[in-house]
Amino acid sequence: MGRVTARRKASHVTSDGAVSRPETLAVEEPLELRLNGTALTVTMRTPGSDVELAQGFLLTEGVIERRDDIARVEYCRGATLPDPESLRSSPPNDGLNTYNVLDVTLAPGVPMPDVDVTRNFYTTSSCGVCGKGSIDAVRTISRHSPGDDPTVVTTDTLSAMPDRLRSAQKVFASTGGLHGAALFDADGTVLVVREDIGRHNAVDKTIGWALEHGRVPLSGTVLLVSGRASFELTQKAVMAGVPVLAAVSAPSSLAVDLASQAGLTLVAFLRGESMNVYTRPDRIKHSG
Amino acid sequence: MGRVTARRKASHVTSDGAVSRPETLAVEEPLELRLNGTALTVTMRTPGSDVELAQGFLLTEGVIERRDDIARVEYCRGATLPDPESLRSSPPNDGLNTYNVLDVTLAPGVPMPDVDVTRNFYTTSSCGVCGKGSIDAVRTISRHSPGDDPTVVTTDTLSAMPDRLRSAQKVFASTGGLHGAALFDADGTVLVVREDIGRHNAVDKTIGWALEHGRVPLSGTVLLVSGRASFELTQKAVMAGVPVLAAVSAPSSLAVDLASQAGLTLVAFLRGESMNVYTRPDRIKHSG
Repeated sequence: MGRVTARRKASHVTSDGAVSRPETLAVEEPLELRLNGTALTVTMRTPGSDVELAQGFLLTEGVIERRDDIARVEYCRGATLPDPESLRSSPPNDGLNTYNVLDVTLAPGVPMPDVDVTRNFYTTSSCGVCGKGSIDAVRTISRHSPGDDPTVVTTDTLSAMPDRLRSAQKVFASTGGLHGAALFDADGTVLVVREDIGRHNAVDKTIGWALEHGRVPLSGTVLLVSGRASFELTQKAVMAGVPVLAAVSAPSSLAVDLASQAGLTLVAFLRGESMNVYTRPDRIKHSG
Repeated sequence: MGRVTARRKASHVTSDGAVSRPETLAVEEPLELRLNGTALTVTMRTPGSDVELAQGFLLTEGVIERRDDIARVEYCRGATLPDPESLRSSPPNDGLNTYNVLDVTLAPGVPMPDVDVTRNFYTTSSCGVCGKGSIDAVRTISRHSPGDDPTVVTTDTLSAMPDRLRSAQKVFASTGGLHGAALFDADGTVLVVREDIGRHNAVDKTIGWALEHGRVPLSGTVLLVSGRASFELTQKAVMAGVPVLAAVSAPSSLAVDLASQAGLTLVAFLRGESMNVYTRPDRIKHSG
């Protein structure tokens, strides 16, 4: 995938002075997702695994429940004449397929989402939007709650995961610019690793991979993310039925609250042999 | 602001075993932004500086151009009866003011945005959405292009900025969970520092502060971000007329391309005395 990285010239400055040299950068490009022909969302992503990204996004936003809910995914094939406004702003690309538009056709009988799935909030007429309402919204639409999952992971297995993710992150190594996400079996076997300029996209790609391979709900697995555990990433784990979410960095208050209510084990600050277990510690077994 | 951090109990695991202890977390809560009474967007943010956040968001998305374009900003005051669906999902908060809904009233004559400002893309009928189109969209609506700004910053001044941001990030120090953004004068004087669970929110808050203090366009300043330089953050700098954007971590390809076209100086991997200058190096003067 030549489009995953790009080279740009930069002036590298140190105390010794400046030298001009080419730098390898992570590519960032918009991906427009269409559902049954209607534009649904645009996300800034690193090209590659776009179909997985779309599938993971639709699953974790509650639009689909299983692989069969999607009839077809394809890059935009039509090349219609643009309107004058878009012609003025981006003439070089109109009519060309940039492979940045993905058309998803839902299977017959699968309803179009009636809420704005890119936000997943009730915007009500009241003043009461709050974290608890956000959690309840996820719980209302979640079909793969991890609460009953009997998975147990040892601390040794968890401790080894960040290094394994990092060593698999090829593009990060060359650019420093990509977030990573990985799915592991409970014994530490790597199932899939994905990278993206957006942390939510990296997670969507791993979950889209799992959907493609008949692994959703993701019982018996650990989802590891290279950064922090936000509400949004926690939501994605819950929606995919992942029992253990582990983050290298800090969790937010709302991530912990959602994990608590959904029965997800949330591990954060996973560094070396040290980690914090915020919820459902019964799934973590001390190796010592 | 008691709502900036929250305490949750966690099991802290090391090779010596596990101890239960309270952990301080960064608070994450939804903020619903309404424009003239219509719900515009919901962002997950750390409470505090919400008015700045709203103003910075509206400016950098091209909805407003100056402070006077806003007639009034206030937390949601009405408390109406919820519909049955929202009652079912979040009964404890309906009718209460959670201070998570902000009503912005535009000044007379300021038009409502006719595009989805939360995405800022043309979703056309063609297949041609691409990075270049995204850049053109920013350039089309930008009113404060930094291209002509004659600001010069020395490498010594830049090198000192990350430590100054970090020492001002009080909540990060206790939680490890917040992104930081800061505005500096060209001589290194700190103008404002803001933290947020979302990196774009931290930037919006600094720019909203600047708008509030009559400092937009932000000529003669440096915007420093604690993480990576994405397209979105670069867009915000360009929209606010910032001439120099500096990031502690990596830039994306599209961030560099936008900076190049807009005449923004983009500095990244700013660590100690080392940094990469990707665009408009004429604004960076070597101190040696």
